[in-house]
Amino acid sequence: MPNKEIPYKIYLEESEMPESWYNVRADMKNKPAPLLNPGTGQPMTAEELGGVFCDELVKQELDNDTAYIPIPEEIRNFYKMYRPSPLVRAYCLEEKLQTPAKIYYKFEGNNTSGSHKLNSAIAQAYYAKKQGLKGVTTETGAGQWGTALSMACSYLGLDCKVFMVKVSYEQKPFRREVMRTYGASVTPSPSMDTEVGRRILEEFPGTNGSLGCAISEAVEVAVKSEGYRYVLGSVLNQVLLHQSVIGLETMAALKKYDIKPDMIIGCAGGGSNLGGLISPFMGEKLRGEADYQIIAVEPASCPSFTRGKYAYDFCDTGKVCPLAKMYTLGSGFIPAPNHAGGLRYHGMSSILSQLYDDGLMEARSVKQTDVFAAAEEFARVEGILPAPESAHAIRAAIDEALKCKETGEEKTIVFGLTGTGYFDMYAYEAFHDGKMTNYIPSDEEIAASLAKLPQI
Amino acid sequence: MPNKEIPYKIYLEESEMPESWYNVRADMKNKPAPLLNPGTGQPMTAEELGGVFCDELVKQELDNDTAYIPIPEEIRNFYKMYRPSPLVRAYCLEEKLQTPAKIYYKFEGNNTSGSHKLNSAIAQAYYAKKQGLKGVTTETGAGQWGTALSMACSYLGLDCKVFMVKVSYEQKPFRREVMRTYGASVTPSPSMDTEVGRRILEEFPGTNGSLGCAISEAVEVAVKSEGYRYVLGSVLNQVLLHQSVIGLETMAALKKYDIKPDMIIGCAGGGSNLGGLISPFMGEKLRGEADYQIIAVEPASCPSFTRGKYAYDFCDTGKVCPLAKMYTLGSGFIPAPNHAGGLRYHGMSSILSQLYDDGLMEARSVKQTDVFAAAEEFARVEGILPAPESAHAIRAAIDEALKCKETGEEKTIVFGLTGTGYFDMYAYEAFHDGKMTNYIPSDEEIAASLAKLPQI
Repeated sequence: MPNKEIPYKIYLEESEMPESWYNVRADMKNKPAPLLNPGTGQPMTAEELGGVFCDELVKQELDNDTAYIPIPEEIRNFYKMYRPSPLVRAYCLEEKLQTPAKIYYKFEGNNTSGSHKLNSAIAQAYYAKKQGLKGVTTETGAGQWGTALSMACSYLGLDCKVFMVKVSYEQKPFRREVMRTYGASVTPSPSMDTEVGRRILEEFPGTNGSLGCAISEAVEVAVKSEGYRYVLGSVLNQVLLHQSVIGLETMAALKKYDIKPDMIIGCAGGGSNLGGLISPFMGEKLRGEADYQIIAVEPASCPSFTRGKYAYDFCDTGKVCPLAKMYTLGSGFIPAPNHAGGLRYHGMSSILSQLYDDGLMEARSVKQTDVFAAAEEFARVEGILPAPESAHAIRAAIDEALKCKETGEEKTIVFGLTGTGYFDMYAYEAFHDGKMTNYIPSDEEIAASLAKLPQI
Repeated sequence: MPNKEIPYKIYLEESEMPESWYNVRADMKNKPAPLLNPGTGQPMTAEELGGVFCDELVKQELDNDTAYIPIPEEIRNFYKMYRPSPLVRAYCLEEKLQTPAKIYYKFEGNNTSGSHKLNSAIAQAYYAKKQGLKGVTTETGAGQWGTALSMACSYLGLDCKVFMVKVSYEQKPFRREVMRTYGASVTPSPSMDTEVGRRILEEFPGTNGSLGCAISEAVEVAVKSEGYRYVLGSVLNQVLLHQSVIGLETMAALKKYDIKPDMIIGCAGGGSNLGGLISPFMGEKLRGEADYQIIAVEPASCPSFTRGKYAYDFCDTGKVCPLAKMYTLGSGFIPAPNHAGGLRYHGMSSILSQLYDDGLMEARSVKQTDVFAAAEEFARVEGILPAPESAHAIRAAIDEALKCKETGEEKTIVFGLTGTGYFDMYAYEAFHDGKMTNYIPSDEEIAASLAKLPQI
């Protein structure tokens, strides 16, 4: 096993942790398109958004100009409970692959939510508390966001109502218990508790649910309950802002050792991890200070970047949310019960969509069995059992490292390892037993879904 | 939330990590009693032990004199994959309890085995590999040791056969899948695969199994298979030696910030975590350089220190192992299906037993529901979902911190947080649903078991 000057894990000191979030929109020439009111077709105003989101978060959502937004001290202290997260040099994976590439990953899984989601959960819960609210509602797919929000709410003494995509609720009963440990209520979605849930169940009686459905239900409950607001774990500008802490730490750790990455790779569902990881690097790229190859990796079963359309669409299935311009498969697209629940979203962050459309980043899709093969290979040498979502990035990183082996290039690859797979063992079991399938939607299926895009 | 000079997490630099293990036996005036051959009643020789264990590990097992044993470079490099582990200042728990006590915990859960067990697993697998063996056999209770050994064996390319206590095998199906991810074979114990398993099943047809049974089966397979040896995750002197890395790192981190602990608390099943955590502190105590209050915490359902007898006993139910002098409930004692599977062992490390008998440490037992109440309280403020085993130490640490609140004493408490509870959600569920029971063995039950101790 190798033993070099750069340590296996680079930890920042607490004093080196970021004191502000970085808002990549400030450096974007083409700003992300605004959210639209589906009734009027006009950009959503702060007042309109204030019925759904906390006031401070609305401000952050609409702010395309301020590059650095200070992180409140209370949030910085909470971050110290589980951050800085390590930037790991994958010496053992490099050795296994016999590649000249240098591989690093930013590991966000060392906290009970099991992922990076806690970075935005505590920020959103903090602003809700500061506004004097009673509680928040949300949706969760794989359960990582719901767990993160439960932890943040429990810490601050806020009520937390989670709508969990039905297929994940059933595949991951333990996730529900973790959320209960943190005092949250968890309802499988679609449910009979909301109008939109009842409507969806009537139309699609056997549905497995989707993030789009669960969002509709959570928004409905937030809007109808006194003292509640809705919070979302991905897609939104504010979420990418909070998640910039990942990229800022990564950049600081790399600079500490004079490491200049050639490419940055992240998995992409709604874009929260990828957006956070790449934001300061993208900032340098936008300002012409440096260049990086940036790659989004999505599941072949839900390929919004690689096979979707850049258009205004609903963020949710029930069409209760504003319209967002994004790469989308259509808000009615219900992906196959792919085990990477966190990547089963029909659309993509408006910020990332604009950057992709501007040619500032690439995207590729990967098949589920290839993803699990990479996950297992990684686990055996790096000692971390990755979440299926994270393993999409591992797959692409391994593929790139193997290309370097062929060409002899000593590229420096950085990827985001968003979390751990401890609650995904049914999926690993299916993979071990050869029972895992690769669902890939047909062109017709995608076209039919896209045909129903709203006419804006 | 507080924000003080001592960081939330103290991480050592890689260069500050221990280069040798510390062997507390070297400083013990009364050495731990030797293992005896049950046939002859004489101390086991290196040759006899060599049939069961690797040669280098036999040497370590029998070495009562060498204080520092160098850690081979390969093992030190493996340690760098997941160590140093953080020493965490529990600022948030202190705040919640409103105690003047200062609480620290050494967190060993940030690796896929979910506990400290990997520290000895890699050492034992390394020596097996170095001796040219094909593979190793072992038992596992909660599954943490089995997972750790699977990881180490997969890394080194050794075969790994795990006998898993039946009740844990059923309560924790996901643990089995993690072990399979690392290529191990996992058999529920007692099984029909071994003579001793068939004998136990005949005598106790509905048995839930126990660590003692599973050890017997694993030893039988090792002894009967060419190129295999048996490895054990706790109890043995060699295991406490490897686990001293926990205590050495803890002491180095404390000294870095001039912190002098008043008490050190650890959960105790066979003693691997407690023995490792306390060893350098006990060394200072034995050499008269410092004094510490040291507390072992065990489950009321399996109270070997607090209600057992200090005597020679079999390490396993099938009586195929050597005799060890230890605090024991009798090798035939089959504890209730307590959810802290890792603490369901009838005996206790000979080293710790001798230290306890010499009055150098204390012990107390705690009830399961009190343990889970502490676990939940801890999770909600410190953000880590603890393993039930670890939560025994949390219970005692909280109790001590609350005592300080009454007396106003500003004691410094250090406890070992051995791991995470992600695979223990059935137990958390039972606790949330009010279905958790507190089994406490009767005096008659313990007396009946102790009456069957071997006559030495």
